[in-house]
Amino acid sequence: MSLHDDMLKMGDQAVAAARLLNQLSSRRKNAILQAMSDELEARREVIKAANALDMEAGRQAGLSDALLDRLQLTDARIDAMAKGVRDIVGLKDPVGIKISRWIRPNGLVIQKVRVPIGVIAIIYESRPNVTSDAAALCFKTSNAVILRGGSEAMHSNRAIAEALQAGGEAKGLPPYSIQLIATTDREAVRELVQLEGKVDLAIPRGGEGLIRTVTDMARVPVIKHYKGNCHVYVDESANLEMALKIVENAKCQRPGVCNAMETLLVHEKIAPIFLPAIAAKLTAKGVELRGDELSRQYVPSMKAATEEDWYTEYLDLILAVKVVSDTQAAIDHINKYGSHHSDAIVAELEAPQKLFSQQVDSAAVYVNASTRFTDGAEFGMGAEIGISTDKIHARGPMALEELTTYKYVVLGTGQVRS
Amino acid sequence: MSLHDDMLKMGDQAVAAARLLNQLSSRRKNAILQAMSDELEARREVIKAANALDMEAGRQAGLSDALLDRLQLTDARIDAMAKGVRDIVGLKDPVGIKISRWIRPNGLVIQKVRVPIGVIAIIYESRPNVTSDAAALCFKTSNAVILRGGSEAMHSNRAIAEALQAGGEAKGLPPYSIQLIATTDREAVRELVQLEGKVDLAIPRGGEGLIRTVTDMARVPVIKHYKGNCHVYVDESANLEMALKIVENAKCQRPGVCNAMETLLVHEKIAPIFLPAIAAKLTAKGVELRGDELSRQYVPSMKAATEEDWYTEYLDLILAVKVVSDTQAAIDHINKYGSHHSDAIVAELEAPQKLFSQQVDSAAVYVNASTRFTDGAEFGMGAEIGISTDKIHARGPMALEELTTYKYVVLGTGQVRS
Repeated sequence: MSLHDDMLKMGDQAVAAARLLNQLSSRRKNAILQAMSDELEARREVIKAANALDMEAGRQAGLSDALLDRLQLTDARIDAMAKGVRDIVGLKDPVGIKISRWIRPNGLVIQKVRVPIGVIAIIYESRPNVTSDAAALCFKTSNAVILRGGSEAMHSNRAIAEALQAGGEAKGLPPYSIQLIATTDREAVRELVQLEGKVDLAIPRGGEGLIRTVTDMARVPVIKHYKGNCHVYVDESANLEMALKIVENAKCQRPGVCNAMETLLVHEKIAPIFLPAIAAKLTAKGVELRGDELSRQYVPSMKAATEEDWYTEYLDLILAVKVVSDTQAAIDHINKYGSHHSDAIVAELEAPQKLFSQQVDSAAVYVNASTRFTDGAEFGMGAEIGISTDKIHARGPMALEELTTYKYVVLGTGQVRS
Repeated sequence: MSLHDDMLKMGDQAVAAARLLNQLSSRRKNAILQAMSDELEARREVIKAANALDMEAGRQAGLSDALLDRLQLTDARIDAMAKGVRDIVGLKDPVGIKISRWIRPNGLVIQKVRVPIGVIAIIYESRPNVTSDAAALCFKTSNAVILRGGSEAMHSNRAIAEALQAGGEAKGLPPYSIQLIATTDREAVRELVQLEGKVDLAIPRGGEGLIRTVTDMARVPVIKHYKGNCHVYVDESANLEMALKIVENAKCQRPGVCNAMETLLVHEKIAPIFLPAIAAKLTAKGVELRGDELSRQYVPSMKAATEEDWYTEYLDLILAVKVVSDTQAAIDHINKYGSHHSDAIVAELEAPQKLFSQQVDSAAVYVNASTRFTDGAEFGMGAEIGISTDKIHARGPMALEELTTYKYVVLGTGQVRS
């Protein structure tokens, strides 16, 4: 069979599985998730052996230490994967919930009901734990999933998927609910995201290159989880103690993640006081500062920022700094250079708070809190498949509810249209 | 300037307009809509003169009578356009509504707020009234819109757009809120739907060819309004009087629209009684019937249906007919051949009603009512931009709420992540 036929077949199998998944009760799904989790633990040695093959190939291919670290599956990481699946048991199943219901003058009862999306394709890189995280989230919402991991993690991903399939199928998981693309042929991704009528949604998870490639090739809908070029704006009305704490947290608590701050904006009226104080604090933590001309007047030790810096997601202990004339200037900077992910204002006055909240065009806008809270668990939504920077369907943390859609079920008593 | 630069500029202008639109109050937006409606009426003669140019060119190009009829703007149609815009004044503005709000253990107040999508591109064919309908719906939801109509209606569309712009701008409509692509160059559509970061959503409205072209070229999200291959299934438990009425309505009341029935499925137990009765009724109304082998045993005058018939949206007085062994067979047929638009069951028993409602994978599923109700106004949602057959973001009637997205506004008191 050709690659095209292989992928068509996977698509058909997924559609058939999705129909069966839609009939499973929440109780049954939870029993299956528990069995998947148990099987991940039971196959610990098999998974580690498969991972060792990937690690060896990675070393030979000259992968960086950082990439090798992301690839490695230790006992602790296998425990965490199994726990991740188990944790999803405890989350509320959104499928079947009536979102709303109303009655028309002609007596028709219109119900808007939450239903699975159908078949979801996840295209990802590196970390093998995405295999189990994504499969478990899609399964909990009665979606069939087709997984395409990075070639560097192929053995690990396969061992994990087989554990989930075997554990789940023993408890009634429909066959082909979780499929992993076995070939490393890059054309398989193209075929996958062009399976109109079979794949209902594609979610690329990884670097910008991967996301662009998938978006360019796709004919099915794609929800993108792009970078987080996040800002904190310190207003002239800010409580400066609070601002110091928030800025430090947003930059330093975990600089390598998408909700970490990359650019600090400071109102010109408080810049003379605030900038030297925050610079001292951040420099002590090893942060490199890159400022515009005005901010360098207050902190001469800063490097000069270039236009490129305003666009950059450093994911590192580097911070761009800019002095702005007012809240509107901060908003304009964020909307121009930002990535519509997470941005915060520190201000005591209501007027700048409201202006900022209303006009900053981002998935999450914070008033007097760190940007680091943009996360499914921190929002109380449970595990998430990523943070959407798109505006269509899902924005911000994409958890169980965002992995569903709706349909209208309309109850009549013989109504016809006149 | 090149076409590429022209389109980039339109995109930038739309983004700038969207920022201003987001700041307009509902009251201001309604005053602008009223002024747009008034200006459509005031420019009646200008619009008719422009339309006469399109009609003349259409005749010379040999457009069919049906297409010429769709293109023509009469006084009554201009009245209807103006009324359409005025009616949107009365609809509730969804922008700014808090969808939900909750408080986290750390005190963070998380608010999910409804906001405009931003910039919407509408690509459409033929009917010039789409220009004003789409512009008014996008404007009411504070979205900037870029319109690309069919070349056959270019003069008409331009006159309508100019009326809306002039009427609106006199009352504070931000410039470039409503832009119409002036060139008939087809490459402009490609440029438009590849304006990532500027255009947030593209909605093609028209035939399958147009929709496929847009989907294939697009890099921005697309919501498709494909065909409606709708079904009515008459169960063995159906009230046959009701079934006769619903089937007749779904097929005959307006056969040329997407929510009209195209295939009738009948349970084998009641086929011997029901099929002759419905055949007599529909034949009297001029409907051509195309049946499978079993149904032709009961109504020998029927033509034989081919595999192709099950996939076909006739939009005409033609009906495909099939006898099925049970509700599950009806569901399987609909999910295989249907277009996920609107499908109905006529049944008195709860078991088949529930099975059908749960398993038919369509935007609207009806129990004991005609499929003809899938419509924004009939659902009580007001005017709509179309009926989405996609599952992402919007499904079924796409009215004001579906032209919005959401963001999280998170209120803190200095919270940082530990």
